[in-house]
Amino acid sequence: MTEIWFTEKQTDHYGITMKLKETYVREQTDFQDLAMVETEEWGTMLLLDGMVMTTDRDEFVYHEMVAHPALFTHPNPEHVLVVGGGDGGVIREILKHPKVKRAVLVDIDGKVIEYSKRYLPQIASGLDDPRVQVIVNDGFMHIHDHKNTYDVIMVDSTEPVGPAVQLFTRGFYQGIYDALKEEGMFVAQTDNPWFKADLIRSVSRDVKAVFPIVRTYWANVPTYPSGLWTFTLGSKKYDPLDVDESSIPEIDTKYYSPRLHKAAFVLPKFVEDLVK
Amino acid sequence: MTEIWFTEKQTDHYGITMKLKETYVREQTDFQDLAMVETEEWGTMLLLDGMVMTTDRDEFVYHEMVAHPALFTHPNPEHVLVVGGGDGGVIREILKHPKVKRAVLVDIDGKVIEYSKRYLPQIASGLDDPRVQVIVNDGFMHIHDHKNTYDVIMVDSTEPVGPAVQLFTRGFYQGIYDALKEEGMFVAQTDNPWFKADLIRSVSRDVKAVFPIVRTYWANVPTYPSGLWTFTLGSKKYDPLDVDESSIPEIDTKYYSPRLHKAAFVLPKFVEDLVK
Repeated sequence: MTEIWFTEKQTDHYGITMKLKETYVREQTDFQDLAMVETEEWGTMLLLDGMVMTTDRDEFVYHEMVAHPALFTHPNPEHVLVVGGGDGGVIREILKHPKVKRAVLVDIDGKVIEYSKRYLPQIASGLDDPRVQVIVNDGFMHIHDHKNTYDVIMVDSTEPVGPAVQLFTRGFYQGIYDALKEEGMFVAQTDNPWFKADLIRSVSRDVKAVFPIVRTYWANVPTYPSGLWTFTLGSKKYDPLDVDESSIPEIDTKYYSPRLHKAAFVLPKFVEDLVK
Repeated sequence: MTEIWFTEKQTDHYGITMKLKETYVREQTDFQDLAMVETEEWGTMLLLDGMVMTTDRDEFVYHEMVAHPALFTHPNPEHVLVVGGGDGGVIREILKHPKVKRAVLVDIDGKVIEYSKRYLPQIASGLDDPRVQVIVNDGFMHIHDHKNTYDVIMVDSTEPVGPAVQLFTRGFYQGIYDALKEEGMFVAQTDNPWFKADLIRSVSRDVKAVFPIVRTYWANVPTYPSGLWTFTLGSKKYDPLDVDESSIPEIDTKYYSPRLHKAAFVLPKFVEDLVK
């Protein structure tokens, strides 16, 4: 029987490989190469520029860990912005917070939204919620045009290649600072320390130049390079490490828990050393 | 130019793949298929039955996390046994503890020890230390023959296939209990929850049937399936969660730290649910 395997070279010399059942979409959008495939191991999978963005089976880790640490740190996260994240997974998690009144998603690539709704409905489930506004636009521009607007901003970008390059610059972090209200905070996915140590170091340094409180945390995402994924949180006032974990309600999650809220910020020593 | 890639199918449908510089050893020993190769990404790598056992670049995670949580929980770990672990990495970490008087390594396959000394000298560095006794024997038998002997026992086995099958049974845990002194504890690597959830569940249940204190912790090992590796600790008296972290000295590690000592026991919720 014909076996078709997809391989993502996560570095020049290393990758993950998985057996495909079906290929639904392969398309060059205006911004990137998009593929939607069905894998045996991980279910439906979205690829951008050949890199795994999300899979049915492990998506909960990344989406929960982008959303909940910040939303359980900010005491009143009413207005939330997601930059990128067109698959809708972060939005779905945000909607689990009753204090959220409005969640805005700004993704530059409408095709990601369109195909995620069709092929990843479990992930995109929140995109039609009345609290959600979906905008197809450049996140950098949106932030520039919305000063003092959001309580929490979440940057759910691709790697710093292609359209996401500008989302890893000090100018972007300053723009986020200005788009946040005076007690606001943001969080961004910031790649892995095994192959991208320099990136994590420079992001941490750049965010520290803009925000008074900067914390790095991590989670295990098996389909992302090395399985160790970091997130950088910058905050004007509230510190995730000051949260009383016993006050965090138990919500419907599979990775995040009140017990993990602070533990996720305890980094392996070699990662700790990167962001010192 | 000819490119040679090695792929470990970590499940029937998923694997990791890496570019090889050189193959030093491919040999069927009396117990398993052994290969020692040079990879571009991870340095020298030991494979048993086609599975990555250890690599120069990420070995520190696994070896530190087998050794230090238990050794910084037991107040006086003088006599330590390692079952398996012929590459010597766990022994190297054990020797960082000044209270350890004697460390015994029992690996069933002398070839693992021999080739590790030759090709992984940085990992095997402790095997000739005067405090260390290296025994080529069946760990199950050694434990049976040494009642009330050890303060800490570490099970650094392969997956439960081939010679390691008996190291994942309740009878083995009872044997370990009997080989430990009255305040003793043991730790075992117990695979990953993404692909081996049933194993983790059954190990936890079996160890709980034998030991009064049972704790599961985890670490990110990028070259192991899913990158999320679990360890199960069974103890007669001392609880790793009762340790005063501020009393743990800072030793020469790259993953473990006093700050991580308890945080490593905070599991992702879906893993927590497996070992409830």
